[in-house]
Amino acid sequence: MYRTHNCGELRLQQAGQEVTLSGWVQRTRDKGFMLWIDLRDRYGVTQLIFSEEKSTPELMAQARTLGREFVVMVKGVVIERVAKNDKMPTGDIELEVRELTVLNAAKLPPFTIEDDTDGGDDLRMKYRYLDLRRSPVQRNIIFRSNLALETRKYLSGEGFIEVETPFLIKSTPEGARDFVVPSRMNPGQFYALPQSPQTFKQILMVAGLDKYFQIVKCFRDEDLRADRQPEFTQIDCEMAFVTQEEILNTFEGLTRHLFKTTLGIDLPTFPRMNYDEAMRRFGSDKPDLRFGMEFVELNDVAQGKGFQVFDGAELVAGICAEGQAEMTRKQIDELTEWVKRPQIGAKGLVYVKCAADGTYKSSVDKFFGEADLKAWADKMGAKPGDMLFVLSGEAEKTRKQLSELRLELGRRLGLMKPGEFKPLWVVDFPLLEWDEETQRFYAMHHPFTSPKRADVAKMLSGDHATLKGLRADAYDLVLNGVEIGGGSIRIHDRGLQAKNFQLLGFTPEEAERQFGFLMGAFEFGAPPHGGIAFGFDRLCSVMNGQNSIRDFIAFPKNNMGRDMMIDAPSEIAEAQLGELQIRLDLKD
Amino acid sequence: MYRTHNCGELRLQQAGQEVTLSGWVQRTRDKGFMLWIDLRDRYGVTQLIFSEEKSTPELMAQARTLGREFVVMVKGVVIERVAKNDKMPTGDIELEVRELTVLNAAKLPPFTIEDDTDGGDDLRMKYRYLDLRRSPVQRNIIFRSNLALETRKYLSGEGFIEVETPFLIKSTPEGARDFVVPSRMNPGQFYALPQSPQTFKQILMVAGLDKYFQIVKCFRDEDLRADRQPEFTQIDCEMAFVTQEEILNTFEGLTRHLFKTTLGIDLPTFPRMNYDEAMRRFGSDKPDLRFGMEFVELNDVAQGKGFQVFDGAELVAGICAEGQAEMTRKQIDELTEWVKRPQIGAKGLVYVKCAADGTYKSSVDKFFGEADLKAWADKMGAKPGDMLFVLSGEAEKTRKQLSELRLELGRRLGLMKPGEFKPLWVVDFPLLEWDEETQRFYAMHHPFTSPKRADVAKMLSGDHATLKGLRADAYDLVLNGVEIGGGSIRIHDRGLQAKNFQLLGFTPEEAERQFGFLMGAFEFGAPPHGGIAFGFDRLCSVMNGQNSIRDFIAFPKNNMGRDMMIDAPSEIAEAQLGELQIRLDLKD
Repeated sequence: MYRTHNCGELRLQQAGQEVTLSGWVQRTRDKGFMLWIDLRDRYGVTQLIFSEEKSTPELMAQARTLGREFVVMVKGVVIERVAKNDKMPTGDIELEVRELTVLNAAKLPPFTIEDDTDGGDDLRMKYRYLDLRRSPVQRNIIFRSNLALETRKYLSGEGFIEVETPFLIKSTPEGARDFVVPSRMNPGQFYALPQSPQTFKQILMVAGLDKYFQIVKCFRDEDLRADRQPEFTQIDCEMAFVTQEEILNTFEGLTRHLFKTTLGIDLPTFPRMNYDEAMRRFGSDKPDLRFGMEFVELNDVAQGKGFQVFDGAELVAGICAEGQAEMTRKQIDELTEWVKRPQIGAKGLVYVKCAADGTYKSSVDKFFGEADLKAWADKMGAKPGDMLFVLSGEAEKTRKQLSELRLELGRRLGLMKPGEFKPLWVVDFPLLEWDEETQRFYAMHHPFTSPKRADVAKMLSGDHATLKGLRADAYDLVLNGVEIGGGSIRIHDRGLQAKNFQLLGFTPEEAERQFGFLMGAFEFGAPPHGGIAFGFDRLCSVMNGQNSIRDFIAFPKNNMGRDMMIDAPSEIAEAQLGELQIRLDLKD
Repeated sequence: MYRTHNCGELRLQQAGQEVTLSGWVQRTRDKGFMLWIDLRDRYGVTQLIFSEEKSTPELMAQARTLGREFVVMVKGVVIERVAKNDKMPTGDIELEVRELTVLNAAKLPPFTIEDDTDGGDDLRMKYRYLDLRRSPVQRNIIFRSNLALETRKYLSGEGFIEVETPFLIKSTPEGARDFVVPSRMNPGQFYALPQSPQTFKQILMVAGLDKYFQIVKCFRDEDLRADRQPEFTQIDCEMAFVTQEEILNTFEGLTRHLFKTTLGIDLPTFPRMNYDEAMRRFGSDKPDLRFGMEFVELNDVAQGKGFQVFDGAELVAGICAEGQAEMTRKQIDELTEWVKRPQIGAKGLVYVKCAADGTYKSSVDKFFGEADLKAWADKMGAKPGDMLFVLSGEAEKTRKQLSELRLELGRRLGLMKPGEFKPLWVVDFPLLEWDEETQRFYAMHHPFTSPKRADVAKMLSGDHATLKGLRADAYDLVLNGVEIGGGSIRIHDRGLQAKNFQLLGFTPEEAERQFGFLMGAFEFGAPPHGGIAFGFDRLCSVMNGQNSIRDFIAFPKNNMGRDMMIDAPSEIAEAQLGELQIRLDLKD
């Protein structure tokens, strides 16, 4: 037996007991006549003590051979510390070592295994097993495990059944790119890895499973932006005989349960906002409600005063940064440059300082007098000491730019407080999005989303303008400006599903080839159903106030989709390609 | 809202209440003036009643339009039944329907949705959503969900952390064939889907996670035998600073917990048997202990009597079938033919009837007199009325044949009682298996398994004969003759791991290319560790006394690895192949 206790559990009450511990050497302090070692495992750190007085010279010498990260087993007696350390749970005691066994030596790690490490990203990914020894990363992985367990407990308690859907499925060109898997037994044919279990969970509803969930890996072969992973995890759910209202309540319940059990936080009832309102007030379908700065439309007070930029604009809108009138010229210039970057694309930035003395100073004083600016300020509810920022142009673009500016101000002004959580349901999404470039409709959520019942007739017979206005029973759960979940009521009628595929540009043959099994299933008694999926990696990071999902994934891949530790992907043998009846066709 | 209650929960106490139910039409009985419909959902069946007396003619007419598997919503009043049905939980009541809404019509299903269906395998796989509506299949899927949840609860309670390991990993030619995934971003390179998370879970131990588990999909591109699936599920576990004894106790605890919570069965303490003993007594490393018929070696009493078949044999061994002396000539002939089939490969079958009157009759009376046969019977503990079967030949082969015969007799004689569970730990497996054909060693468990501590020195320096005799800390959990779990203590030392790869025929370069990351990790402070993996699909089926894992998998594939419902795998577009920089190279 390697241990009687772990390194996090010994207390004063064990004083006098002989115990065995195993773990890693975290740190050694050698005072000559005395030597202390911090012994670490997943559960904590226990201080070991060796001394000339109590230890044999051989044991002292042996202790001095230990390097960082050596794995050792020690037997000894728990004693009360003279100098207690109230920052460590085991800080009241130390272990007077009688016997020391080196279980494994360790080379010097390429970076320090401390909360703050000196290792760069690449090095930490390559030696992921060392990075994972660091408490912050280990805590993340443990948090994730707890979050998954609590998800399962809650949903099982609500009558959901976890069903494993297959990983080797069928490729569908719609949506993101599939990873594919050549089939040796069916030469020339390929499986695809699922981008989500969407059709299978709907099939399970047709099958009468009633309430399904799964915490499941999904795969997308996309060019990886900053914080995407080719494989990611979803909490995937579906319910039959259910309305949107019941789904929202169920998953609000799940979210509250998760916050309560893992963070000890009671979330209030989640507000709801429809898509149009979210776009109007925040220029975003995932507004961060930790701070205000709502959009105020200024067309009526800002147009017709001779400022051509505003006069020619579809929309003039502003936000008010409370108490920021003292912002320096340099700060304002930085913000102006920031909104003019191609990623944001604004032409310029108008500001109005509402000075403490009740006067106004703006970048457009030439066109607007004190009274004009006061009218803006009044409309925006600004007080002396506030700062207004105004953008203008085509309405949709301006809202997006203003939304980015609002978020940037939130970040710069420290308004996104860690530990504060503002959930929001955004509902009533459009069913279809028109894409000017390709001159076709795309599904706003996905092709299986149902229009609202009141919109079904319009969908079946409507013209182009009508189709643009269709609303869906589709909803997103937003937390601190991050979409952590999204779902919809689904179509459960073959005719309506076929119509939707048609609107999305499928020929009947294509629709049948790719989704015939689902439309076929709808003919054998499909119940009304709907569901939701949560981005599990993202949920972990948002709940911990962190931006990167990587530190919540045990073995993440880099931006080239590469696992730096195992060095995958890699070349495979010719014979293996031969068995699969494929060959390489490299372009260069 | 589609329902106030489900179809399984109404009782007499709800009599008089107005309720709404939704579900599928299971069956209609029409007596003209009265009409009953069984309405079904996942939770049960509720009887609906329509009558000339209480229902409008329109409602009666509407009810008559409903076909099997129509999806309907009904509002009505719960009433006490005149003729109660104590076989249904809802059998005390029925629902007097006031309002009927057809939510979806249904075509006539291609097979009946009853406990016993008339659907063949292919039809049921193609219309899996209909097959899944049948209670026995639905119960299996729900059982599986419960089993997974209880597994997670138990292991979490024991301090295990569930960690998701990656699905896009690196191909290793050792072991079964990998499924591979071409990488678009790294042209010419491939990921592999994991055959198990073996190396990752060991890395997690090096990372200090201490106790890991995962219920996880694994993939093997094998030619599918009767009851194999290309994707299957494991309960995968690993522990650090642990001895074999602690692992066995932990997972015996898990198994007992699962039996108790899902089946209400208290399993006794699991017996243990070492590999050599299992082979000697049962000719198998996974003996079914639900019945006896242990092997008895007869060389000393059966050789040297002039029967050449025995005299030239390395082993003469028999089993005693209790009370089977009255077996007919025909039955014995059938058994003889059965053991002579190429799959078994015996040359013949010797029997001895121990007649009730104390006399013996055998197929080798020419060579053995009454006294000889009595000596056999005595040695085998046979009583009058028993039947002995004896096989002979090369020891290993004979044991395998006799094991097959024993199991066949167990089946024919009904000795494998459903509901009876006999767990067994088989321990002390050999480390290496010598393969005569390829003249090389194979890992009996896998290349990461540690020899027993006492055998390490022999492994590092031993000759061929010594290597054959090495024993490993490897163990299997056997239940009713099925291996449901297997694991080992792992090597955690770079040198020993390198030696093992060498013995298994790897060049140092191959070992480094494929497993360099793991051997590298061992140099940075790897703790002693070990683990186990359970076949989750198999565990589900064995716990339910069933032979096939298919009915415990929501969407199984057929023997050609094909999903009959979605029709996968399938061809993919040329453009998609082009992006992946591969092309087809079909042989015919």
